[in-house]
Amino acid sequence: MTASTGHPLGQALMDRLDALASFTDEPGRLTRLYLSPAHKAAAAQVMDWMAVAGMAATIDAAGNVVGRYEGSGEARQTLLLGSHIDTVRNAGKYDGNLGVLAAIACVQALGDAGTRLPYAIEVFAFGNEEGVRFPTTLTGSRAVSGTLDLSTLEVRDADGASVREALVAFGCDPAAVPAAARRPDDLLGYVELHIEQGPVLEAEGLPIGIVTAINGACRYRVDVIGEAGHAGTVPMNLRRDALAAAAEMVLAVERVGRSEDGLVATVGSFEIAPGGSNVIPGGAQFTIDLRAPNDALRDHAATVLQGELAAIAERRRVELTVERFYEAAAATCSDDLVEPLEAAVRRSGIRPLRLPSGAGHDGLAVLSLCPIAMLFLRCKGGVSHNPAEAIAVEDADIALRVMLDFLRELAPAT
Amino acid sequence: MTASTGHPLGQALMDRLDALASFTDEPGRLTRLYLSPAHKAAAAQVMDWMAVAGMAATIDAAGNVVGRYEGSGEARQTLLLGSHIDTVRNAGKYDGNLGVLAAIACVQALGDAGTRLPYAIEVFAFGNEEGVRFPTTLTGSRAVSGTLDLSTLEVRDADGASVREALVAFGCDPAAVPAAARRPDDLLGYVELHIEQGPVLEAEGLPIGIVTAINGACRYRVDVIGEAGHAGTVPMNLRRDALAAAAEMVLAVERVGRSEDGLVATVGSFEIAPGGSNVIPGGAQFTIDLRAPNDALRDHAATVLQGELAAIAERRRVELTVERFYEAAAATCSDDLVEPLEAAVRRSGIRPLRLPSGAGHDGLAVLSLCPIAMLFLRCKGGVSHNPAEAIAVEDADIALRVMLDFLRELAPAT
Repeated sequence: MTASTGHPLGQALMDRLDALASFTDEPGRLTRLYLSPAHKAAAAQVMDWMAVAGMAATIDAAGNVVGRYEGSGEARQTLLLGSHIDTVRNAGKYDGNLGVLAAIACVQALGDAGTRLPYAIEVFAFGNEEGVRFPTTLTGSRAVSGTLDLSTLEVRDADGASVREALVAFGCDPAAVPAAARRPDDLLGYVELHIEQGPVLEAEGLPIGIVTAINGACRYRVDVIGEAGHAGTVPMNLRRDALAAAAEMVLAVERVGRSEDGLVATVGSFEIAPGGSNVIPGGAQFTIDLRAPNDALRDHAATVLQGELAAIAERRRVELTVERFYEAAAATCSDDLVEPLEAAVRRSGIRPLRLPSGAGHDGLAVLSLCPIAMLFLRCKGGVSHNPAEAIAVEDADIALRVMLDFLRELAPAT
Repeated sequence: MTASTGHPLGQALMDRLDALASFTDEPGRLTRLYLSPAHKAAAAQVMDWMAVAGMAATIDAAGNVVGRYEGSGEARQTLLLGSHIDTVRNAGKYDGNLGVLAAIACVQALGDAGTRLPYAIEVFAFGNEEGVRFPTTLTGSRAVSGTLDLSTLEVRDADGASVREALVAFGCDPAAVPAAARRPDDLLGYVELHIEQGPVLEAEGLPIGIVTAINGACRYRVDVIGEAGHAGTVPMNLRRDALAAAAEMVLAVERVGRSEDGLVATVGSFEIAPGGSNVIPGGAQFTIDLRAPNDALRDHAATVLQGELAAIAERRRVELTVERFYEAAAATCSDDLVEPLEAAVRRSGIRPLRLPSGAGHDGLAVLSLCPIAMLFLRCKGGVSHNPAEAIAVEDADIALRVMLDFLRELAPAT
């Protein structure tokens, strides 16, 4: 059922996204966990659509759906497209699924036009990007990239089932997981369309944007120890107020976050002690989350920030402890893909905006296999991981046309 | 047992403070609740010491111990001295008790020297300054001042006993409470020695200081509502971070607190929501405690502060609610007593430092009866309401000599 909206490509995609959203493990809301019955049914549906688009579709040993669309006779390389079809609990319809179904729609359009490109296309519907059922993420894309730690097969869900057991139940052969890894040398790259999950495109009035990198992140735990005291009897100049010191640090974090394009810095958790309205706070604990599209930028920001925190602590005579408890490297998108993508955006008459991805994606894993790139689609209010996730059919249509144009113009290295 | 320290007055006072500290409702630590057995025993001990000092001692209808030392023949007025002998749980030895025993020590010295002053002295050992047993404070001093709301007699302790019942058990006649009120017109004033409960004298290297006022206080509850968001995907310029806004407000509170001598401003309670390390805070709630030695100063500071908070909220596009939930007027000390006290301090060779009292005292109640003044004694680390409360014998000695000199020089208005 395709409504007539004047955006036939976009509308067909929206209809399939609606249809795929009916595959859920929890009636009444969308929850599609890795290797679950809903995942299996959704995978079968995706395979059907791949077949209709002229692809040879299979499920690999890690539960990923893979559809291959051969190139022209001289094609020696393969471009990977796709995203994931597992979801969070009570998910929206677009996170992951959009990238898979948009890739199939592009191949469908190529096939309908009888177009063969000078490279093959493989569309992946990865499993376990979200890491909801099992305490591990990016399982499918890591398997394809050859970086899956095989001990991951032994981690268990809340019901005690291991990934290995769930793979068998899904119809896969866990022993074949290592063989699911692709060889890097025949790959052109990996391109993923995804909803932005942030408010930038909406604020800029743009339907799509070109991702520069999946941001790296580091997190710090900060402890400030001042001196508690009576709010009435200790004059201002004799105080070592841990909250006032921490407040100054929060503003330093914000200032550093604002100092470079693409950098974001957040104090998300913040607590003080003892916490009585008539007691000067003696302690404060907070976290800092620092993300940047490249690690050098993030490391520089972290260094600047730690200097500022130390200066504040010294000036205010409070004790400071800063401990890094998490770090993930940035995944930079390849110019070899970003520039052709940007050219396609420009040809569509849309101002090409480059922006980093603050959230993680399968590209984090695929980067070890081949160059990656991403296109972001505007989503309403920047909302994701929520049934309120929404995109416009017009935007979906534009994204498909840009991707098709990109695919048609992309030339493999000779 | 008086050790030979070269400070006989001070040492005798310290010995009595140690002795009085043995009257406790909780073996092993000092807890002396209003109208408790320990309070009754301590009151009897205080009466004994008053009698030894040449005073006529009684217990009034509110459970206050009162000792009267007559003046010379022409004396028409009475100066009130004293403090309270109830304590918090797990108290120090000096809060309250110091002022009572110092007053008795002064009268003892006058009596030993055969000195009669041109006014009578009454030493009060008030009951229920602290408000620990019953949910009401300043009961004794309010009764003496004629401002005790008689419904207070009906409030009950944790065991269900009312103040009225506890007074009867203490040996008092609750029906006579209104008659315990003193007539204002025969009173010269009320002077209390108390430990500072703050760090100012210690920081200034001074044993004593002259109190200018018992600070008034107001407290506000502040709510900041911004917008929660993903710490990775929302760029800095699109955030409405409630914590960053609240942090700026905390620094504004501190800045206003520093803007005038005697003013103190404290954010003592501070919470944010939702509080995940990867989530931009959407809400912040905190309290402001604002105290000043005069209400006009405090009200002006409150007005300035509210303007600053509103400006921060507007600039950061967050919603702001500020609600005052507590207010107490300042009790200004009388120049008629402060100046003679200051003169006595100066005559003792000590630099006279005027400072406000951030904590509440019986003078808050007595102010409605007659002029008040207070002398503060340095306490170690500014600590009070804690067994670690400590004063130096040298300081106690100085305080007694200054008080005696003050008493000898004070001339009643004719």
